[in-house]
Amino acid sequence: MEEIKLFCPATIANVSCGFDVLGLCLEQPGDEMIIRKSKTPGIQITKIVGQDLPLETEKNVAGVAGLALLNDLKELKAGFEIEIYKKIKPGSGIGSSAASAAGAVFGINQLLDEPFSAKELIPFAMQGELLASGALHADNVAPALLGGFTLVRSYDPLDVIKLPVPEQLIGTVIHPQLEVKTADARSVLKHSVSLKNAITQWGNLAGLISALYTSDYELLARCLHDEIVEPLRSVLIPGFNEVKATALKNGALGSGISGSGPSIFALSKDEATANQIAAAMAEVYRKFEVAYDIHVSKINRDGIKIL
Amino acid sequence: MEEIKLFCPATIANVSCGFDVLGLCLEQPGDEMIIRKSKTPGIQITKIVGQDLPLETEKNVAGVAGLALLNDLKELKAGFEIEIYKKIKPGSGIGSSAASAAGAVFGINQLLDEPFSAKELIPFAMQGELLASGALHADNVAPALLGGFTLVRSYDPLDVIKLPVPEQLIGTVIHPQLEVKTADARSVLKHSVSLKNAITQWGNLAGLISALYTSDYELLARCLHDEIVEPLRSVLIPGFNEVKATALKNGALGSGISGSGPSIFALSKDEATANQIAAAMAEVYRKFEVAYDIHVSKINRDGIKIL
Repeated sequence: MEEIKLFCPATIANVSCGFDVLGLCLEQPGDEMIIRKSKTPGIQITKIVGQDLPLETEKNVAGVAGLALLNDLKELKAGFEIEIYKKIKPGSGIGSSAASAAGAVFGINQLLDEPFSAKELIPFAMQGELLASGALHADNVAPALLGGFTLVRSYDPLDVIKLPVPEQLIGTVIHPQLEVKTADARSVLKHSVSLKNAITQWGNLAGLISALYTSDYELLARCLHDEIVEPLRSVLIPGFNEVKATALKNGALGSGISGSGPSIFALSKDEATANQIAAAMAEVYRKFEVAYDIHVSKINRDGIKIL
Repeated sequence: MEEIKLFCPATIANVSCGFDVLGLCLEQPGDEMIIRKSKTPGIQITKIVGQDLPLETEKNVAGVAGLALLNDLKELKAGFEIEIYKKIKPGSGIGSSAASAAGAVFGINQLLDEPFSAKELIPFAMQGELLASGALHADNVAPALLGGFTLVRSYDPLDVIKLPVPEQLIGTVIHPQLEVKTADARSVLKHSVSLKNAITQWGNLAGLISALYTSDYELLARCLHDEIVEPLRSVLIPGFNEVKATALKNGALGSGISGSGPSIFALSKDEATANQIAAAMAEVYRKFEVAYDIHVSKINRDGIKIL
């Protein structure tokens, strides 16, 4: 294989009670990437369509992630060209950088006849996240690479667990075109939390994991709360409370901040409800005269797809 | 049915990463109780063998729990006598009060032809825990009543989830005859915890829940850590570090404080290992010249049993 074309999906990190450990892969939206072998050693980003992002390999998340893989393999002579057709907006909170980083390592791994498993690719993709956000996090790249729900149990050593996805689950995501910098979203966090709230959070996360294994949608709904981060971060997202309230009123199992925002997600268990939630969420930002993108998407069980 | 004889099992609360939410039911040790209908309305504790505990109904955890049930039913004329053959030592940290409280409500419910489900009995049994420890907690009475692993996701409203038990799992518990008062065990806790440690804890608990559903013993072992409570409470239990270290050295999947101590549990996946761990744990307290009881027990999937 000389060339590969990929669909690189958006992802929702945290998913309310799973701050910094849980992630979820969507069917839509997603970027497309074309990666081809080249005679020039290293990685060239030859084209980026749809966003104004750096073409310089060391400044591009796909470039950095791909180089991390090649360095690990000591494939000093291997060369790849990458074209990125960007559909996930950077800064949206649905894993734009993760899609590019994960796509690069997935595609290069394919063209090299898969020296690495999907799980083994995660640390390379995390190098892209480090460039994008200053933090080596895996809660978007893990679901992008593995699909479904993923749990990042530990970083040292990296321990990622793929979790099951209840059949009917469907997501609605609204991305209001407001800027929330990841650095700001980090800075509002407190270094300590009350033991009481922490217990509530881990009880909810434990219940959510059980709900995923048993497809218990009612339990899932009872668990989709975030006592710790959402109260702090939601103030950075104008309209958050209204959007969440209307999502729940329109039948969402739960609703919360996607990653560090500003996107807001809701989960429900049928497409009609997901569409109704989308319309209701959109109405909030229409009233506020804030531009938005909206996505209704099934859960992507497989992650990145070869097109 | 006029009379019922019960086996009321010991339980392990918290189970390392599940502080205040997780509990686990053992096959051994356990109390026996005889409950019979009586013409005298209310509850009489007619006999307690094995421990010096109050016979006065309002001062006895079984009495208080049973009365809570009768009051809820408005069964003002119903009367019951309770005999308790106590084998689980009070203050051991393996759910002695829970066994009595759960046994009382289970038995009375049986004699009244089961007006309540096992889950519905939990709040009544919790009244016994309130008397015993000053706190309305369910992390021992829930596994005693439901069996297996239980998750107390929420108290308001009460939401208890029964979790699966990996086939081979087996427990070892050592009870050094040292006094750790529940009040002291509570007072060493801090009101706040670092967000970093809380994330580690909920990642581990989420992983543990996944391991229970998938019978993944290696994952279970990686998750059986407590970053938050064990470092504080273990200092109240002389020999804890040595016991835990020797349990792990002898093949335990994990080891930690049972409830608020002083009992220390270990989990392993075969009986030979569980027995080897028991011998190694015992050796520690033999050296320290501290008396101890030791129990090797399969996981009790059903909770209280009718004899």
